[in-house]
Amino acid sequence: MQHLTSIDQEFDRLQSGDRIALSQLITKSESTKTADQAFIDCIIFKGKDRQKLTRRIGITGAPGVGKSTLIEKIGSNISSLGRKLAILAVDPSSSVTKGSILGDKTRMNEISKLSNVYIRPSPSKNFLGGIAENTRKAIQLCEIAGYDDIIVETVGIGQSEHDVSQVVDMTIWVGIAGAGDELQAVKRGIMEWADLFVINKVEEMSLDAAHLAKAQLLSSIKYLPKAKSGSTLDVILISAIENKGIDVLMDKIYDYFNINSDNNSLTMKRLDQANDYFVLLWRKEIADNLLLIDDFRIKFETISSLIAKHEVSVEKGVDEMNKYILNKCR
Amino acid sequence: MQHLTSIDQEFDRLQSGDRIALSQLITKSESTKTADQAFIDCIIFKGKDRQKLTRRIGITGAPGVGKSTLIEKIGSNISSLGRKLAILAVDPSSSVTKGSILGDKTRMNEISKLSNVYIRPSPSKNFLGGIAENTRKAIQLCEIAGYDDIIVETVGIGQSEHDVSQVVDMTIWVGIAGAGDELQAVKRGIMEWADLFVINKVEEMSLDAAHLAKAQLLSSIKYLPKAKSGSTLDVILISAIENKGIDVLMDKIYDYFNINSDNNSLTMKRLDQANDYFVLLWRKEIADNLLLIDDFRIKFETISSLIAKHEVSVEKGVDEMNKYILNKCR
Repeated sequence: MQHLTSIDQEFDRLQSGDRIALSQLITKSESTKTADQAFIDCIIFKGKDRQKLTRRIGITGAPGVGKSTLIEKIGSNISSLGRKLAILAVDPSSSVTKGSILGDKTRMNEISKLSNVYIRPSPSKNFLGGIAENTRKAIQLCEIAGYDDIIVETVGIGQSEHDVSQVVDMTIWVGIAGAGDELQAVKRGIMEWADLFVINKVEEMSLDAAHLAKAQLLSSIKYLPKAKSGSTLDVILISAIENKGIDVLMDKIYDYFNINSDNNSLTMKRLDQANDYFVLLWRKEIADNLLLIDDFRIKFETISSLIAKHEVSVEKGVDEMNKYILNKCR
Repeated sequence: MQHLTSIDQEFDRLQSGDRIALSQLITKSESTKTADQAFIDCIIFKGKDRQKLTRRIGITGAPGVGKSTLIEKIGSNISSLGRKLAILAVDPSSSVTKGSILGDKTRMNEISKLSNVYIRPSPSKNFLGGIAENTRKAIQLCEIAGYDDIIVETVGIGQSEHDVSQVVDMTIWVGIAGAGDELQAVKRGIMEWADLFVINKVEEMSLDAAHLAKAQLLSSIKYLPKAKSGSTLDVILISAIENKGIDVLMDKIYDYFNINSDNNSLTMKRLDQANDYFVLLWRKEIADNLLLIDDFRIKFETISSLIAKHEVSVEKGVDEMNKYILNKCR
């Protein structure tokens, strides 16, 4: 009963826009305790019938491409329209560096002082629950707290931007021209999740070089799955630091949301994401659940030791384990 | 019968050191056809009782740090001792760029002509079966073909070096000094799998700068799990292009293998890797296997549609699915 009252109370505090409540609940959502997770799941489920349309925007790119400066410009723009904006950082590398991105709020000096902007630095520990799961919950908590737009910043290294793209409506990739090697290497796998491409720091190059960079990027992205599926992938040249091209970028962002809200694509995308998340989570948990059954655990350990003794191959071991379970379940 | 004869024939061709057989079998091991996989698994299982000690070395680092030049130097060194060397490239980004690493054999001009060196470029398609699985099989095929040392080159972006570190005995991380931002960002997650750190291209900097870079790297790696577990992580300064520091590096590599062979650590590591692989593969396959059972599939689809209608949360849906299966299996 205590617990139920407390969920209602916390929900009300959150919904009233209390920033401390929001921060505390996001911290709780990063906890590995089952009770904390259940608490957060209840809060989120209680808020599931919100009708307000929010925008979830992911910003990804390698370190040093100027993501923070760019987010500051986008953020000023959004907040000047009177919309409430939350900025979440997802930096899987920050557990050692203690927040190479956003950990230091002074990097977003201008907007961090605004009352309608909430900035959440990367958690200091690893995302034990998985980036996608934790970020999804943080986004939903921000939405219950009344934030209209949520920007998720992630470093363009590793699995994180794939994970982030699974929880946002629009993914914007930020790069700098001239980083040819990097462009080559990250082209696939990282870029294929993007909905828009931005080349930043054009102030550091000639106009010719900037247009060449744009042309090169355009010619590589035309092979990406999204381009093939008929969506128009665009490349925009900007200078975040000199505030150039930001208006074009904002138009592209608003266009994306207008078009995809009208044709119901965003609703479908979120439904697909929820379903993918269900499949992912179930796949992750089912194995551990099965090993709670004594027979299965014993069989598992037997096969494991046969593999160690080279008496059975890993592939045969997996087959045997699966057949054993299926026979029991039928 | 036809099939069995053919396995024996292929095994003999492979064991005789036939390079064409080796290349064909590695290609087959990258196939997604179940029959091809089963064929390869049989070949590998047939070769499981080899007694010869091989060395499996992973070389990882961002594009542009000079991995190819370094591997050429290490390779010359190894092959000059009369040992047979295989070099495998794992580049998940190369499906679009058609092999930014090793695709062009001229990048390893010197050693690609040697009769005791085999170079296998990155496959042109994605690693559908997973990098770890494919690389593990390619390594084992090379070993059956009589190769003593196997070098696996991978780009230090994304999941690939974690995966590669799971199939080699020793992982060497290569970086360049001055790439501070990159160092920060990749510090964890990528570096934590390394057994040795190499700073290349010291010819491009002053002696002071090189030693500062080494000191900085040493101070960051001391927090890595491996350092904590008592293993001595070292940083070596080299210039692959000027052939400086290669002798020190080779000594470190040989020391690593001597120490860890003597105390049985390498055997234990390979056993652990086989077991981890069994767990991974089983976890990956069990969910699909369960969904072959009609009752489970119907339940899965029911929950899926409830989630889409917001009538149940993803977490509750997963719980319900797991409980349903466990009840059936007990």
